Amino acid sequence: MRDFVFHAPTEICFGREQVSHLAELSAFGSRALLVYGGGSIKRNGIYDDVMGVLAGAGIEVEELAGVEPNPRIATVRRGVALCRERGVDMVLAVGGGSAIDCSKAIAAGVPYEGDPWDLVMDHSLVKAALPVACVVTLAATGSEMNGNAVISNPDIPAKLAVKSPLLCPRIAILDPTYTLTVPRRQTAAGVADMMSHTFENYFTLEPACDVQRRMAEGLLRTMIKYGPIALAHPDDYDARANLMWAATHAINGIVSQGSAPAWSCHPIEHELSAYYDITHGEGLAVVTPVWMEHVLGVDTVVPFAEYGRNVWGLVGADDMAVAHEAIACTRRFLFQDLGIAPNLRGLGIPDESHFGDMADHMWWRTEKSFVPLSRDDVVAILHDAF
Amino acid sequence: MRDFVFHAPTEICFGREQVSHLAELSAFGSRALLVYGGGSIKRNGIYDDVMGVLAGAGIEVEELAGVEPNPRIATVRRGVALCRERGVDMVLAVGGGSAIDCSKAIAAGVPYEGDPWDLVMDHSLVKAALPVACVVTLAATGSEMNGNAVISNPDIPAKLAVKSPLLCPRIAILDPTYTLTVPRRQTAAGVADMMSHTFENYFTLEPACDVQRRMAEGLLRTMIKYGPIALAHPDDYDARANLMWAATHAINGIVSQGSAPAWSCHPIEHELSAYYDITHGEGLAVVTPVWMEHVLGVDTVVPFAEYGRNVWGLVGADDMAVAHEAIACTRRFLFQDLGIAPNLRGLGIPDESHFGDMADHMWWRTEKSFVPLSRDDVVAILHDAF
Repeated sequence: MRDFVFHAPTEICFGREQVSHLAELSAFGSRALLVYGGGSIKRNGIYDDVMGVLAGAGIEVEELAGVEPNPRIATVRRGVALCRERGVDMVLAVGGGSAIDCSKAIAAGVPYEGDPWDLVMDHSLVKAALPVACVVTLAATGSEMNGNAVISNPDIPAKLAVKSPLLCPRIAILDPTYTLTVPRRQTAAGVADMMSHTFENYFTLEPACDVQRRMAEGLLRTMIKYGPIALAHPDDYDARANLMWAATHAINGIVSQGSAPAWSCHPIEHELSAYYDITHGEGLAVVTPVWMEHVLGVDTVVPFAEYGRNVWGLVGADDMAVAHEAIACTRRFLFQDLGIAPNLRGLGIPDESHFGDMADHMWWRTEKSFVPLSRDDVVAILHDAF
Repeated sequence: MRDFVFHAPTEICFGREQVSHLAELSAFGSRALLVYGGGSIKRNGIYDDVMGVLAGAGIEVEELAGVEPNPRIATVRRGVALCRERGVDMVLAVGGGSAIDCSKAIAAGVPYEGDPWDLVMDHSLVKAALPVACVVTLAATGSEMNGNAVISNPDIPAKLAVKSPLLCPRIAILDPTYTLTVPRRQTAAGVADMMSHTFENYFTLEPACDVQRRMAEGLLRTMIKYGPIALAHPDDYDARANLMWAATHAINGIVSQGSAPAWSCHPIEHELSAYYDITHGEGLAVVTPVWMEHVLGVDTVVPFAEYGRNVWGLVGADDMAVAHEAIACTRRFLFQDLGIAPNLRGLGIPDESHFGDMADHMWWRTEKSFVPLSRDDVVAILHDAF
């Protein structure tokens, strides 16, 4: 186990009607920027719930609506300008990872004099930030309990993360009833996303990380149990609650700190989203099993065999056979049980013309990952995923 | 899953030489009360490490040494007086649960005008507290990442908890090398203690708490793997590291929030410690399997069968048979693998004369537990444990 610092100070308010805790935001000031995406929160009543609590707490609201599924730096810039113009004290996201990540980037951008994209390119420039809070409406990114935000810049194109402990939300409202109306396709993509976070942390050659690995297996088993239930019965509270809390733990540090290497599938998928604006969780679902088969070998078989035995209940003494079967189980789950398109063509990517450029942008980011990937490795994975 | 608020804002600095993070305490002031037990931290160099970092950070130190294994209210009173007299800004525990719990009670006692025992009897009186930090030297209580403190009052006798979010340590140093010299008997008692915390959270009839239960199983498997390794090879870093981090998670809220009922074995053991000052973990080890057999029945068999299958790898379709075998595994582990005395007589308790009084003091505290216990139930458990 490696040395680490774990600090996840977010107050998680989990369950029915926990939106009332937003009244605590008055400790941070009297004016909030409300950040959200499309109009779904107005249709399903969440917007009214939030506005009611904020009004009751004496907090005035400015609004930034229309945040994209892959939030763009232009939207961040718009939010920063709005905050400065109106003297906003805090940023409140209502939505999934895109609204939360956009809010974090805005919060960091307000006290920074230069362009917010600088902060993405150099995290050390984040010296201060407005307080961030969030109301989560999609179980997926787990952005509610960490200091990471992924922002897209279509001009480059690039999709990259800014990270700072200052961006960790102070308060996060996790009300599973707010996810009961999430459509089937987004529910499935969310499950693939949270599983991918867990996988990226779980597949490591760092020895003796039992605490982290056994808890990660518990999260994966929970996602595998409840994902299909949420698809079949969208209003099943227990399924939505378990998926929501599992998604948070997948990326709040408890299964990564001390254990996890740099990630591989996420940088690949970020390229796909940067070029084609595909749904993040769907891209991850397609890339992940291909990556698994690509990196499986005699040196890496042990964590795959553990995955097979402890998550899928596979038996048999041959580690390599168990590992291959575990990957087959993963494919069946993602593409049959969750119904996600099994290849990049199915996600609407027309051809392989950009795969070389994508590989150029990120292969070197995997230098400290579970299995470092060469440019050729990345192109081969994208090709096999196509 | 029940509604809950999860908030564990402690900064955990885990690994070798993390004691250097104590320099961050200068944010809280320039004078600390150092709270510790016997002289072991002077023999093994931890005291010198701590004093060196504090001196380097310009923090002056007052000392409260000699905290008992079951910290007493008289010691808390002494610490409160010292803090007031010397204008102390923060309380730093160096030790196991007793030093940390004593520090929390002192921190709460300083701004409270009345007697600190009032705070144990009525938690709502804790309105403010000095900042608490800790350097953990024993993997056991997990007190480093929650706001609970258990204090003994031999005059009554009573051993009870004070709880407040204000008492959650701001910074906790978890350096597994600081536990390499923990003697065999204390190591075993620590493992029993952390397992008991996990059990008390795990055995619940609350439905659909998969996230919490699967993670708890992962913690139990880790403790069961590494407990005997730490006994056989006291200087095995991996074993000490996994036990240390598992102990923290067992009681920081992640396996209890939304899921756990009121506890049963702890209140029983607290009576035993209050009367006979026995080692907490050893008392828990003796009481727990007896309690398990006592509450096992057709209505409670499911979590026990899950425990057997998911923690001990038991197979077989008969839930009740698996449940009994799981309890047998638990006994073998605690009394053979960890070598803890298997009954209260073995812990030095001379007779059953106080069992009725003990039951009177606490049976009603189990009203909201997994299986509420009557006075007769508690007496029967103590009798069977004797």
